[in-house]
Amino acid sequence: MEYIETLGISAKNAAPILADCGTNIKNRALSEIAKRLRESVDGIIAANRLDIENAKKSGMAAAMVDRLTLDVKRIAGIAEGVEQIVSLPDPIGEVIGGGELPSGLRVVQKRVPMGVIGIIFESRPNVTVDAAALCFKAGSAVILRGGSDAINSNKFLVSLMRGALAECGVPEDCIQLVEDTSRDTATAMMRLNRYIDLLIPRGSGRLIRSVIENATVPVIQTGEGNCHVYIDESADIEMAVDIVDNAKTQRPSVCNAIESILVHESIANEFFTKLNERWHGKVAVVGDEKTAENIEVEKLADDNDYATEFLDYRLSSKVVKSVDEAIEHINRFGTGHSECIVTKSLENAQKFQRRVDAAAVYVNASTRFTDGFEFGLGAEIGISTQKLHARGPMGLKALTSYKYLIDGNGQIRE
Amino acid sequence: MEYIETLGISAKNAAPILADCGTNIKNRALSEIAKRLRESVDGIIAANRLDIENAKKSGMAAAMVDRLTLDVKRIAGIAEGVEQIVSLPDPIGEVIGGGELPSGLRVVQKRVPMGVIGIIFESRPNVTVDAAALCFKAGSAVILRGGSDAINSNKFLVSLMRGALAECGVPEDCIQLVEDTSRDTATAMMRLNRYIDLLIPRGSGRLIRSVIENATVPVIQTGEGNCHVYIDESADIEMAVDIVDNAKTQRPSVCNAIESILVHESIANEFFTKLNERWHGKVAVVGDEKTAENIEVEKLADDNDYATEFLDYRLSSKVVKSVDEAIEHINRFGTGHSECIVTKSLENAQKFQRRVDAAAVYVNASTRFTDGFEFGLGAEIGISTQKLHARGPMGLKALTSYKYLIDGNGQIRE
Repeated sequence: MEYIETLGISAKNAAPILADCGTNIKNRALSEIAKRLRESVDGIIAANRLDIENAKKSGMAAAMVDRLTLDVKRIAGIAEGVEQIVSLPDPIGEVIGGGELPSGLRVVQKRVPMGVIGIIFESRPNVTVDAAALCFKAGSAVILRGGSDAINSNKFLVSLMRGALAECGVPEDCIQLVEDTSRDTATAMMRLNRYIDLLIPRGSGRLIRSVIENATVPVIQTGEGNCHVYIDESADIEMAVDIVDNAKTQRPSVCNAIESILVHESIANEFFTKLNERWHGKVAVVGDEKTAENIEVEKLADDNDYATEFLDYRLSSKVVKSVDEAIEHINRFGTGHSECIVTKSLENAQKFQRRVDAAAVYVNASTRFTDGFEFGLGAEIGISTQKLHARGPMGLKALTSYKYLIDGNGQIRE
Repeated sequence: MEYIETLGISAKNAAPILADCGTNIKNRALSEIAKRLRESVDGIIAANRLDIENAKKSGMAAAMVDRLTLDVKRIAGIAEGVEQIVSLPDPIGEVIGGGELPSGLRVVQKRVPMGVIGIIFESRPNVTVDAAALCFKAGSAVILRGGSDAINSNKFLVSLMRGALAECGVPEDCIQLVEDTSRDTATAMMRLNRYIDLLIPRGSGRLIRSVIENATVPVIQTGEGNCHVYIDESADIEMAVDIVDNAKTQRPSVCNAIESILVHESIANEFFTKLNERWHGKVAVVGDEKTAENIEVEKLADDNDYATEFLDYRLSSKVVKSVDEAIEHINRFGTGHSECIVTKSLENAQKFQRRVDAAAVYVNASTRFTDGFEFGLGAEIGISTQKLHARGPMGLKALTSYKYLIDGNGQIRE
């Protein structure tokens, strides 16, 4: 597809120039972006209003319209986010290995930019600036392909950012937007491995699966979170209720919120009684028969329910006979994001952490902590649920590669 | 495809048991493999003879038959390779990050096995044992899919390794062979992302491109090496000839051998004269017109030649006006493997190392050093030419992932 290829070539040409920019130039450009965001609140809101009007006309649900909406406070938040990225240490150029080889060759393993990063994401226009700023600080050109719902907001924001780059003498094509939001452009982008070094899909499970199915560009899967809390036989029941409540209801729409609980049969009655006292039906429960004996269920759960990321005030539940059954269930239905055991047993805690195959495995704490800021990485581009390259919260370093620089004085191999 | 899915399920079941094995058990099993290799020389050679007979019947080229052939010395070499892997430090369990978060959560970032690794490779049966032993030491179950040419050798070797695992109480399914070598099994394996965590193709550019095109499993590209030496204006000509000669002719069939030279116009005559004195036609040259003015060329080079990995006593050549033109040519035609500049200019050396986009960028040394042993990694599973996860020689660590283990005492997120 010629249109996408043109973007790819422009990005590939901009990338080495950006790679050569020092930290000061990159930070100056990012600060200029933040300044322009603050100065352009009216323009951003006007562009965003077009998207909101279209969304309302097309009958978009109120919660989705809310995610799409930019206001003065949210724009200030986006600008602050960019300023935080300015304050993060620059990962590029860090020496991460090396030494002198027996042949006398001197090797330096140095962190370098990825090159060109593609981001395919859905509605939220704040992602547009977040993702662009993170890729830019990590020294890579970015091609952004947001959803059609936010196209007017995205066009305005990307144009604003490109203006800031130009002002600072950096190629505008370090940040590009795919303005044609047909499905074809997304597919073409997934297959542009000649020009794109890394593709990160951010959004629904359906989007992510489509990318995995179609991409020839290396992909990092992010953000699908079918997360569990297992309440062990020996759990502190009050703590278990606190953690389940926090992990489910503090912000149900995010990927590190839980979708499922597994309850040891010996404490099921006590746990569900206390959970019921806490929630009084605030969260709908989809559970197995033994759950239904202890708490009101919306329906009996099937495998499909156990595999579902509700992202809502809804939870699946199963009563299990042992920590082993819980681990097996999690490894079958989990998405490798964040998993938790509430227990007083050291043996079960260790077994759970060792055997559960996920990016973050918690003992006695809410899964909601899986987050770049909480983990001290600063901003994050997403939470990887795969095992290659990066796992869990991905900060700036996860957007870099490395290369070996080798200096000799004529060494040849014997 | 049911057959491949069955292998996937068996590997997925074996992987957590292997992940729980300590270093001692893994080393004992590897030592047992080495011992059995040494004891079974006759059996291995008999199985290998079947492959050689079939290959000869089908008219395989002598060089390929040689790559397929196992003899007493080569089998001893394979056993030694396994013993070297025993002596390498175990990467699993290494703490690579972590600390205490403001919330009081204690985080440990720990290196863990990848899970299940798939290797798709071509004829050489030594790869079968090398790859299996490396994956095993890195704690991952492996599914090996070798070429049909080596199927009898591979069946014997895999059966031998599985016997050694069983003897040591480790699940045999940690090492499995795809015995059906039809194209369908390779394709099915590329799409088995439910059970395979990482796929590494080892072989020709065609194989690698087919994997990239078809895989839904995360892939690491390895071993395609269209490597260059650029001889700068200020080069020490003797050194340049030594390096070009070594990098081209010491072992032309390997990926870190060079395929192309770029020669600064101001020293072209002197360089080619000395190169000719060294080679006397030993290497066929495919070059541009300015090359042809200085040395005999087999034909004039086109873009296709500049993109070709000859893996033979053949070399493409171009006379360039500047280091910038050389860098541009390399970034266009190179495969991101190993690149070299011969120069006395610090400025050009630095520019070349900064701008050339490859895993290993050399100043005044042969590209033949890009190798796991030379780089001090011990054995290698391949040389990555992509930027995600691992770049350059891949040792045991490149076959691992990590996870975050988080311990709390009831922390919830505010």
